[in-house]
Amino acid sequence: MLTKKVALGLSRNILTLNCDSILGCVIAARRFSENNFDILSDEKKNRKQLVILGTGWGSYSVLKNINKLKYDVIVVSPRNHFLFTPLLCSTTVGTLEFRSIIEPVRGVHFRNAQDFHLSSALSIDTKRKVVHCQSEIHPKKEYDIQYDKLVIGVGAVSNTFGIPGVTEHAFFLKELVDARNIRDRIISNFELATQPESSENDKDRLLHVVIVGGGPTGVEFGAELYDFLTEDVSRHFPVLQHKVKVTLIEGNKILGSFDKRLREYAEKKITKRKQFEILQAFVAEVNEENVILSDGTVIPCGLVVWSTGLSPRTFTKQLPFEKDKFGHIITDNKLRVQGISDESIFALGDCADIDVMPLPATAQVAERQGRWLAKYLNGQTEKEFEFSNMGMLAYVGGYTALSDFKPKALKFTGFHSWLLWRSAYLTRLGNWKLRLQVPVDWTKTFIFGRDISRF
Amino acid sequence: MLTKKVALGLSRNILTLNCDSILGCVIAARRFSENNFDILSDEKKNRKQLVILGTGWGSYSVLKNINKLKYDVIVVSPRNHFLFTPLLCSTTVGTLEFRSIIEPVRGVHFRNAQDFHLSSALSIDTKRKVVHCQSEIHPKKEYDIQYDKLVIGVGAVSNTFGIPGVTEHAFFLKELVDARNIRDRIISNFELATQPESSENDKDRLLHVVIVGGGPTGVEFGAELYDFLTEDVSRHFPVLQHKVKVTLIEGNKILGSFDKRLREYAEKKITKRKQFEILQAFVAEVNEENVILSDGTVIPCGLVVWSTGLSPRTFTKQLPFEKDKFGHIITDNKLRVQGISDESIFALGDCADIDVMPLPATAQVAERQGRWLAKYLNGQTEKEFEFSNMGMLAYVGGYTALSDFKPKALKFTGFHSWLLWRSAYLTRLGNWKLRLQVPVDWTKTFIFGRDISRF
Repeated sequence: MLTKKVALGLSRNILTLNCDSILGCVIAARRFSENNFDILSDEKKNRKQLVILGTGWGSYSVLKNINKLKYDVIVVSPRNHFLFTPLLCSTTVGTLEFRSIIEPVRGVHFRNAQDFHLSSALSIDTKRKVVHCQSEIHPKKEYDIQYDKLVIGVGAVSNTFGIPGVTEHAFFLKELVDARNIRDRIISNFELATQPESSENDKDRLLHVVIVGGGPTGVEFGAELYDFLTEDVSRHFPVLQHKVKVTLIEGNKILGSFDKRLREYAEKKITKRKQFEILQAFVAEVNEENVILSDGTVIPCGLVVWSTGLSPRTFTKQLPFEKDKFGHIITDNKLRVQGISDESIFALGDCADIDVMPLPATAQVAERQGRWLAKYLNGQTEKEFEFSNMGMLAYVGGYTALSDFKPKALKFTGFHSWLLWRSAYLTRLGNWKLRLQVPVDWTKTFIFGRDISRF
Repeated sequence: MLTKKVALGLSRNILTLNCDSILGCVIAARRFSENNFDILSDEKKNRKQLVILGTGWGSYSVLKNINKLKYDVIVVSPRNHFLFTPLLCSTTVGTLEFRSIIEPVRGVHFRNAQDFHLSSALSIDTKRKVVHCQSEIHPKKEYDIQYDKLVIGVGAVSNTFGIPGVTEHAFFLKELVDARNIRDRIISNFELATQPESSENDKDRLLHVVIVGGGPTGVEFGAELYDFLTEDVSRHFPVLQHKVKVTLIEGNKILGSFDKRLREYAEKKITKRKQFEILQAFVAEVNEENVILSDGTVIPCGLVVWSTGLSPRTFTKQLPFEKDKFGHIITDNKLRVQGISDESIFALGDCADIDVMPLPATAQVAERQGRWLAKYLNGQTEKEFEFSNMGMLAYVGGYTALSDFKPKALKFTGFHSWLLWRSAYLTRLGNWKLRLQVPVDWTKTFIFGRDISRF
């Protein structure tokens, strides 16, 4: 039992705690570890200023691994948390809750509140060594930040290929706010479909979900929809269950980056599902109630999720650095931006590409680059960045997944892969809070079903 | 261990499960209990149609306790969940998560998806026995629902007393979406205050929270702010901690409905806190950056939370029934609306008042009325509704609370009251999902602190 004394002591952040219980000690240790930056403030003040742009896989990985005794770190990002993207699809239907897959950047990695800026970088002045920023909350507020070393890890945006109506009517699946919008739309459509004024045509349209793009995100979103359909729609909206339809539109093969056998397994699994269809086609237009294909076919639908790859951000586009044909900033294999002679600017993740070693735009690549870059900046390595693919995982719904690892023997499908998928991601979650919450969410979903409340 | 068979079986809602484990049986039983409405569909079809307006304490309590063998129940509400309002304040700063205090209305209490309407009632035609409704998602869609019995439990809205600027600039604290907006504003203000462009004056303003109204909601919101300030701001924004200020404005005494000794304890406790102030004053205007008092004093602030009591909804106002001076629908002590001779319309909770027995507008009253009304409609009682106050609880922050129960001996303050407060609410939560999640949230907050991510 925790005594009142411990409880009150902690609440006031007194570190000389009455640790008369194991739990008390654990908590005290944790809180202390989070506050131990104070000891750094006595260090000599001639640390270099490292500015990191972004809080995605690459940037966050630099932040986590950088030696804060060597650098004063400033992070600039329009997002004050790190998002565990591989589980983002699970939040769209409520298998996991939104806050179960994010880690706040503040508090854990900073000495001062001012070392994190909820802002976007607008431009870089390489001569004055200054990043020009714009506040995310108050867009009129613009200001400069000085850097000695700069890490660009701003990621990318969804690629619409300039197709009309995509930006206005389709939902992307990149940020938590996207997942929240999708969840809200799904619930709203089901609610609307049950109302007396909805015709059979309305219902068919409202309950038709079109996913554009057959990469892992598109397929995993479809998988979550399938689970939602079989496990929850059947309970909450039994009369609507047979009305729901999911169409996955892909110009080529789905899961192109996976091993052929796994790909075929996924395709077979998905097409076997009565209300699921894979359509090999190209989208020409999206409007409020339809997707229009390049052959003129009109597909009425209530939700379009767009996941057809990436395109550089406006910020990346206007940077005065050399780019490849996709608009990625070109770096050498020490992640140094080409044309910057004094080794002051690095780029990594989805906004960059290594000239001699083009890599896929995945979380894994960005995370490994970040870890390597931190080591390099810490002076712990002189070797160039190297990458060997650890493998890939993808959930296909109904307690089955794909796992595609290097040795042939480790290419699994089915229930075992699903177990591997869950345990792999669980161990990769960045802190104990998430490692506690995610299994609680999974358990709740398994026992009680998903929450379809709308607010 | 649950086998794959059980897992897959459940996922397909097959009730003939391979229940080879205790957990499996528990889950199967739970799922079955949620699906047992099927057996009702064989019953004779001459059930009366009971329409319930609202999903708050009163209406939801009728829904939970009504005999579904006797009535076909239809619920009309702009909210498809029940909100456990006593814990709403805890979600504004992240002590609890939003979905931890709501129960979906669907799935649990209905046979058919069509028995719940995400709509608002616009008017009642007592002659045709029809409620005219408007879809919450698609405001152009309007339609009628027939009733044999009608329960009006639509609650009330926050009372602005017509003070200019309140609707536009202040935040209410009635629904989950209010709590989400407040949380977002608090985080945004802290983020903005740390940015280089913010002057000292900006910071003082941004971090000044004004609470208008000293009832339980205002005081409990202040209490949560206090915990947030001492436990989390100190960790995430240490330089800003001394800047934060909270002012509670109340025209009379705070917690007017509580016992004098408890009230004084709360007042002493709050005013002892360095950055907290109780101001006996009246508000004349609210604008984007200030609260202006009736004596002309201008109070710059970054957030105004308005909680000064209730006022009837537009729907209630236009109903052709007799009202009291506050605009409540007058009922007799069998909750029957006056002037309706055939006992077809009942009203309860914050939108109604019993002519001979005026009661406070609390969750407790509404919940007890709902339970009584269900019993009455079920034919289980002929007695009139009676109410004796069970007592009140209020959290005042820093692990202390007030508990005000009938016998003098049960008027507690301090840590013991806090324990009572937590356990009382925990046992009152409506289902096992919440009873699992709320303690998890409390544990997470205690060990890891509150989540200040913004999305």
